[in-house]
Amino acid sequence: MTRLAGRFVVFEGPDGSGKSTQFRRFVRAAQTVGVPVCEVREPGGTVVGEAIRAILLDHAQKDMTLTCEMMLYMASRAQLVEQRIRPAVASGQLVAADRFLPSTFAYQGTAGGLARADIEAVARVALLGCTPDLVLVFDVDEQTAQQRLSPLLDRMEAKGREFHRKVREGYRQQVAEHPTRYRRVDASLSEAEVWEQVRAVTRDFFAGKAERT
Amino acid sequence: MTRLAGRFVVFEGPDGSGKSTQFRRFVRAAQTVGVPVCEVREPGGTVVGEAIRAILLDHAQKDMTLTCEMMLYMASRAQLVEQRIRPAVASGQLVAADRFLPSTFAYQGTAGGLARADIEAVARVALLGCTPDLVLVFDVDEQTAQQRLSPLLDRMEAKGREFHRKVREGYRQQVAEHPTRYRRVDASLSEAEVWEQVRAVTRDFFAGKAERT
Repeated sequence: MTRLAGRFVVFEGPDGSGKSTQFRRFVRAAQTVGVPVCEVREPGGTVVGEAIRAILLDHAQKDMTLTCEMMLYMASRAQLVEQRIRPAVASGQLVAADRFLPSTFAYQGTAGGLARADIEAVARVALLGCTPDLVLVFDVDEQTAQQRLSPLLDRMEAKGREFHRKVREGYRQQVAEHPTRYRRVDASLSEAEVWEQVRAVTRDFFAGKAERT
Repeated sequence: MTRLAGRFVVFEGPDGSGKSTQFRRFVRAAQTVGVPVCEVREPGGTVVGEAIRAILLDHAQKDMTLTCEMMLYMASRAQLVEQRIRPAVASGQLVAADRFLPSTFAYQGTAGGLARADIEAVARVALLGCTPDLVLVFDVDEQTAQQRLSPLLDRMEAKGREFHRKVREGYRQQVAEHPTRYRRVDASLSEAEVWEQVRAVTRDFFAGKAERT
């Protein structure tokens, strides 16, 4: 875990994949061994971003177009990168993010239907070249994911099983296409077993890399 | 004015240029002669857009980065184009807009410092090819504009005289670069004189074009 200083690690997966639970364990584990952590979540993580988050997850916004939705995620992300992620990485902190650009490719791209080239074009402007070192994708079948969700769903979570099947497919495509930066985690197992995978995958991934600080 | 059906006309200019007053006169005049008008303002004009507007004009958002700001304007605009502007033009209405993409080039581009190519790249995705037929630019010196502003300024209006000088420059550049679609209006004159220009410019502009409906 000490090799994590100055790194940018992203936790990704469909709603109900258990990603956020593992994310919190990961942050605590890093802090326990003395790694300074900058913990962010998307959408949100800044004052502006939390205001944008409120719009994105609001059921009253049922007429929101897909392009507008993608732009709002990118606006929140642009603020997060410039205000928090880049300064934290530069100062040697571990940046742990609960969702980042891979969510947009999965949700608004593969599942929603926006062209990948369009998302990439906007991301080039919004993210100022900021790329995660490691993306952990929590992969789980739709049925297991559905069972784990709270009955109080927000606007994104409430999109139904077929949508979430496509989201999963979007993540699996990204894992296949980016073997150097993405790692799949089998998230259908118990919380303890998934955590063991997270530890092992992270350790192995950064074992081959020089320390940043 | 009857030639305005199915057209998309944008009113642009620095805060304090008197643009919005002339905009309302224009809308009323078109309605008076029986042209159906779809009237929109930016940021806003849709349920989502008004929520975005509240963030953009909020003084509490003083840490908003320029890229985030630009993305928020584009998100609002994407929603406006798809939900209101394109259907209205298609159904033969006159779309009259108080601000559109030229504002982003002037405020976040020339005045703010964002690269024009970056704004163009995002606009290509956000606007789905939607381009105004005519852009009226209300050109006024900073001192006159400042005097016309209400003492209760929102976050964008409160940026000061030097910023507004650059905004004006940004608009003048666009007028010079797009002679086929942009027209300058001398907005330093009285309200009645400016309105006479608006009428004359609009009439002359569309006189050379075939009716749309």
